[in-house]
Amino acid sequence: MTMNRQITLAARPVGAIKESDFAYREAPMPAVNGGEVLVRNLYLSLDPAMRGWMTENRDSYIPPVELGEVMRGLTVGEVVESKNPAYAPGDKVTGRGGWQDYYVFNSQDLAMKIPDGVPIPVTAFVSVLGMTGLTAYFGLLDVAAPKPGETVVVSTAAGAVGSIVGQIAKIHGCRVVGIAGSAEKCRWVTEDLGFDACINYKTENVAEKLREYCPKKIDVYFDNVGGAILNDVLGCINVGARISICGAITQYNATELAPGPANYLSLLTKRSRMQGFIVLDYAPRFMEGVMQLSQWLLEGKLKYKVDVVTGLENAPKAIGKLFDGSNQGKLLIQIANG
Amino acid sequence: MTMNRQITLAARPVGAIKESDFAYREAPMPAVNGGEVLVRNLYLSLDPAMRGWMTENRDSYIPPVELGEVMRGLTVGEVVESKNPAYAPGDKVTGRGGWQDYYVFNSQDLAMKIPDGVPIPVTAFVSVLGMTGLTAYFGLLDVAAPKPGETVVVSTAAGAVGSIVGQIAKIHGCRVVGIAGSAEKCRWVTEDLGFDACINYKTENVAEKLREYCPKKIDVYFDNVGGAILNDVLGCINVGARISICGAITQYNATELAPGPANYLSLLTKRSRMQGFIVLDYAPRFMEGVMQLSQWLLEGKLKYKVDVVTGLENAPKAIGKLFDGSNQGKLLIQIANG
Repeated sequence: MTMNRQITLAARPVGAIKESDFAYREAPMPAVNGGEVLVRNLYLSLDPAMRGWMTENRDSYIPPVELGEVMRGLTVGEVVESKNPAYAPGDKVTGRGGWQDYYVFNSQDLAMKIPDGVPIPVTAFVSVLGMTGLTAYFGLLDVAAPKPGETVVVSTAAGAVGSIVGQIAKIHGCRVVGIAGSAEKCRWVTEDLGFDACINYKTENVAEKLREYCPKKIDVYFDNVGGAILNDVLGCINVGARISICGAITQYNATELAPGPANYLSLLTKRSRMQGFIVLDYAPRFMEGVMQLSQWLLEGKLKYKVDVVTGLENAPKAIGKLFDGSNQGKLLIQIANG
Repeated sequence: MTMNRQITLAARPVGAIKESDFAYREAPMPAVNGGEVLVRNLYLSLDPAMRGWMTENRDSYIPPVELGEVMRGLTVGEVVESKNPAYAPGDKVTGRGGWQDYYVFNSQDLAMKIPDGVPIPVTAFVSVLGMTGLTAYFGLLDVAAPKPGETVVVSTAAGAVGSIVGQIAKIHGCRVVGIAGSAEKCRWVTEDLGFDACINYKTENVAEKLREYCPKKIDVYFDNVGGAILNDVLGCINVGARISICGAITQYNATELAPGPANYLSLLTKRSRMQGFIVLDYAPRFMEGVMQLSQWLLEGKLKYKVDVVTGLENAPKAIGKLFDGSNQGKLLIQIANG
């Protein structure tokens, strides 16, 4: 009988996530009841938001993962057994599969069947066509609504979300300036993805470079980092700017709250707004987003990169790459071949 | 021949405004050319925004007052001579009259004639029906759009703008919680203006009291203060909250930028927005605002208080009252009887 390997939350992290915050266990295969579907996970998406899910904050947008529970995560997998007429063995599905080999879902769960015969690799469905791409799509177009000719700045420009944000802004006719943490990342987004410029925040003065690369100031900022960079951007916004707050990776590991952006009063003098969003709120529009992103992908207008680490057992270590700047593109764990 | 007493900007303040930042001079009466109107100022509005106008910040929403220039200010006055057929001696007008006895305007300037026979004192036109009231009106209704049943919090609740904001929110069927700096101010807004509750930030724990008085959390916050109170509010917002940034009086006198609100990431988890505005942007809709505010005033739904200091020469000292919490309602300088 096959076992189900699982990685559970063993401790709530203090500061950076440690491997010891997770535990490994082997569970029996889950039972498949009427209407349910058994899925074998192929790829697990690792996301900065997971840091928040590990924290005891009952007032966040989603309850925390409980200690001892299988760690939450989005996956793409393959149906191995189905007691639901809508699914058949071999179907590929995305869903909240968790950090484990197998899971069972029913029609109440948020799962999406990948249409047969689409010439797109399954990894796209946990990156550019998954929550990552949808986050970029709605967080940019709905929250910030860039117009052609406007200047859009995006942090974590070479990251999973940032790289898609910048490309969507280019498709919309904007000037796009990225901010990333290495010359190699900057080169990728300007030369391969078509960004107009990219600031290496580790070696360059961000405030100065923003002035240089944004001569008409910043109309839209898509923020994944918070901290000093958000503050520098606020010091360089145009009248009527829209700041879309997607995340704040500089702060997720902080053991106490960092100061907020001192330049927030630019929102007043520049009649601008700063707005947070959670991609799950757009669930009723996910189909629209996936269709548009797929079209751009098939037309060659959208490129993406996956950074695949092999082996479920390596997830507790690999997640650290999201916070130390060592990954580029979308970080995935390959759990099984499929 | 009559002289024109003027108060000019003598020095750019460092920290709190000092009387010595202003100078007094007597100038000849201004000439009245064709199309122009000579006005004797009756009341001068003193506003926190003046602190910003005195500062060398060329990147703000309005150029600073130059050193040696008559200090900028909104006034209500009486026409004494007119070479413009639309105005006659005795007409009352509001406009950018400045800290002086007399000024001249032409049809290019933003001036408004007060209709004859309206049973409203002229001081209303530099308070509840002036920029003060319009700031409350558009900053609440347009920027934050409160809905009946929602909870609205307003800082400087007993101030010129805050007291109007809270009453408009009550008219719109909201639960209204004020924040003010004395028991007397709290008493006024709850007993006389109908606020549901008021927190004395000098003696009470704001974060705790917000939780107590806002059991359904905060949907709208109208901010005039910034600093710790803005941060406390951010820690208590509801999903979909709107924060209207009108001012930040705690920070205007700061010699270096204070830390921003550490709780700004509540904007993300609560899918909320923080938006600044400048009332001048609503100039095309001022008539709408004044008409609505007048109607509420005449119906007895809106109360206001003026705090009148007599004598132009006392303006340099009186403006300090806006920053030390010693005034209540709208601070005006009576320049002449009219």
